[in-house]
Amino acid sequence: MALVIDPWGAELHADYEKIVKQFGLEVFDPAFFPEPNRLMRRKVVFAGRDLKLIASCIKNKKPFYALTGIMPTGDKIHFGTKMVVEQLKYFQDHGAKTYILIADLEAATTRGVTLETARKRALEFHIPAYIALGLDPKKTIFYFQSENKDVMHLAYEAAQHVTLNEFKAVYGSADPSRILAAVTQVADVLFPQLGERMPGIIPVGIDQDPHIRVARDVVARTKTQHDFIPPAGIYHKFTPSLTGELKMSKSKPTGNIDLPEDLKEACRKITKAVSGGRKTIEEQRKLGAEVEKDMVFELLKMHLVEDDKELDKIYNEYKSGKMLTSELKQIACEKLTSFMNDFNVRLEKARKSMNALTFISFR
Amino acid sequence: MALVIDPWGAELHADYEKIVKQFGLEVFDPAFFPEPNRLMRRKVVFAGRDLKLIASCIKNKKPFYALTGIMPTGDKIHFGTKMVVEQLKYFQDHGAKTYILIADLEAATTRGVTLETARKRALEFHIPAYIALGLDPKKTIFYFQSENKDVMHLAYEAAQHVTLNEFKAVYGSADPSRILAAVTQVADVLFPQLGERMPGIIPVGIDQDPHIRVARDVVARTKTQHDFIPPAGIYHKFTPSLTGELKMSKSKPTGNIDLPEDLKEACRKITKAVSGGRKTIEEQRKLGAEVEKDMVFELLKMHLVEDDKELDKIYNEYKSGKMLTSELKQIACEKLTSFMNDFNVRLEKARKSMNALTFISFR
Repeated sequence: MALVIDPWGAELHADYEKIVKQFGLEVFDPAFFPEPNRLMRRKVVFAGRDLKLIASCIKNKKPFYALTGIMPTGDKIHFGTKMVVEQLKYFQDHGAKTYILIADLEAATTRGVTLETARKRALEFHIPAYIALGLDPKKTIFYFQSENKDVMHLAYEAAQHVTLNEFKAVYGSADPSRILAAVTQVADVLFPQLGERMPGIIPVGIDQDPHIRVARDVVARTKTQHDFIPPAGIYHKFTPSLTGELKMSKSKPTGNIDLPEDLKEACRKITKAVSGGRKTIEEQRKLGAEVEKDMVFELLKMHLVEDDKELDKIYNEYKSGKMLTSELKQIACEKLTSFMNDFNVRLEKARKSMNALTFISFR
Repeated sequence: MALVIDPWGAELHADYEKIVKQFGLEVFDPAFFPEPNRLMRRKVVFAGRDLKLIASCIKNKKPFYALTGIMPTGDKIHFGTKMVVEQLKYFQDHGAKTYILIADLEAATTRGVTLETARKRALEFHIPAYIALGLDPKKTIFYFQSENKDVMHLAYEAAQHVTLNEFKAVYGSADPSRILAAVTQVADVLFPQLGERMPGIIPVGIDQDPHIRVARDVVARTKTQHDFIPPAGIYHKFTPSLTGELKMSKSKPTGNIDLPEDLKEACRKITKAVSGGRKTIEEQRKLGAEVEKDMVFELLKMHLVEDDKELDKIYNEYKSGKMLTSELKQIACEKLTSFMNDFNVRLEKARKSMNALTFISFR
């Protein structure tokens, strides 16, 4: 049976290398890109589609776009979203026209919040949070999905070019609402090209590759009508749960850290996290930690330690037994505290700068 | 196997009585409605859903609406559409708020015409043709589907409340584009109730009952959110093809008459039509015609003879053998000529009155 990457949250096969082969992805090579960011340098970003095209746009200063969507449900964002924003920031810093759509229509129809509530949450929390994570508000273009008739028209058109069986093969299921959500996402991904044909890159978790594939299929099948350029994808791994699962999940809160999070609670979760440390201090001193099994080290690597040398030092000391598990966890708690405090300050600042944002307005 | 009424044009079971039973429809009784029109009096209109509710609105002068859509493809309308407009006119004349949506989005996505072309065709031909068939332009509210965000939002919501298997059961297939078309039609049917909760009636050919059923299911399933009133349906039979098939169809042009139509060609088709007349004049005089097998008599009954007494006279003379087939066909050709000429005059007049129309405008 084919391995299905299910973007809807079902079990994902953990073997990222296998996924690369099975889906014919390009292996990500940080050497392609100037000043690779933390996620790129550490191979958290591990695969993509048409990466060289985007690298060439950066190198030759040719126009391209980067795009992501905000699902304005809830009042927290998780670490997977943090990675998307960091990737988006990377491309923004390297010349991409940056689009953020607020998926209020999808939120309203699939999560049962009203358009008004979705809009309010986006304006009060999600957009400021994205800015707090480093996006330049002056260089980012926003739109609300529910206002964008062009996206809706394009979604209807996309639906003409994907069969029910393809939806089933790609997503594992094909409920009407999922079909609508999927074709709308295809339309969002292609929307910037209605204005100008240019390459675009969509940074997402690997589970979202099906959306990219469908969008690329639609591009191929609407060549005579639109001549869109197939969107590129760049994929990162999941932040593993502190309890050792492949990804953090709301359904298992003890392994999950969101933004923002109560710091006391977050540090308690770190204390209880699955560790690569040995059972006793003596053993740890003698054998060193099994770092590759350590969820706290993963958190430090993926999110909390910016400097490679600092990370190397932690790795070596922990691996050699010089550093104890409790010390590693203490570092993580301190780093997280510092990050969260910084985030909260930036969030408040971002909230005050909302007037400066550019929203596409639709007649 | 269940009998599927396929609104997409596949074979329809001809036994209208069986359809009424199988789908739990109400039998249409012209006695319910004041001043029943030609189609009602002659049982061309034969079934419906919630007919008494609408009859009661008419009787008690309570608000209700009648709605239909224009599919602005091609530059002709067929006799089935003529019946829809006549039904709509009946309800308009009896107090219904009348809505006509231009399904430009559906035309663009399912028939491959651009939105601009669809719009142009609607304005230049379809809307004037509907007015030429008797609608009061001052009492009719129009909108373009592609401009109506409320309809699109409602379509997304409707998709949450219909499963893929239900689509398959109702429509016999569930291609993504059909799903989008179907949920958009549900949204169109319910759209007037976003402004005011009131009963509404949708006059359609019997093959469109699935859309009504799905709309009614969505109403039941969104009770807490919207509390819509389930739309009523009123169904007419097909105009049979002159060549004897259940319905006229573009795929068999020799049996098909459209509006407008070249009159010489149309009369030639009538001349060659399947007849209930006998093989020789002698036999016809002696036995009379088998009127129930006569496609030209059907055309007269459904479309061309307004006065019941006149129709009775034709029926009796033809049945008794006093009237020959050639004479019946001559009458049909004359009536059609007169109708077409009248239609063309009204069409030109309607084209000149387009400024008086009310289009809902959307910000």
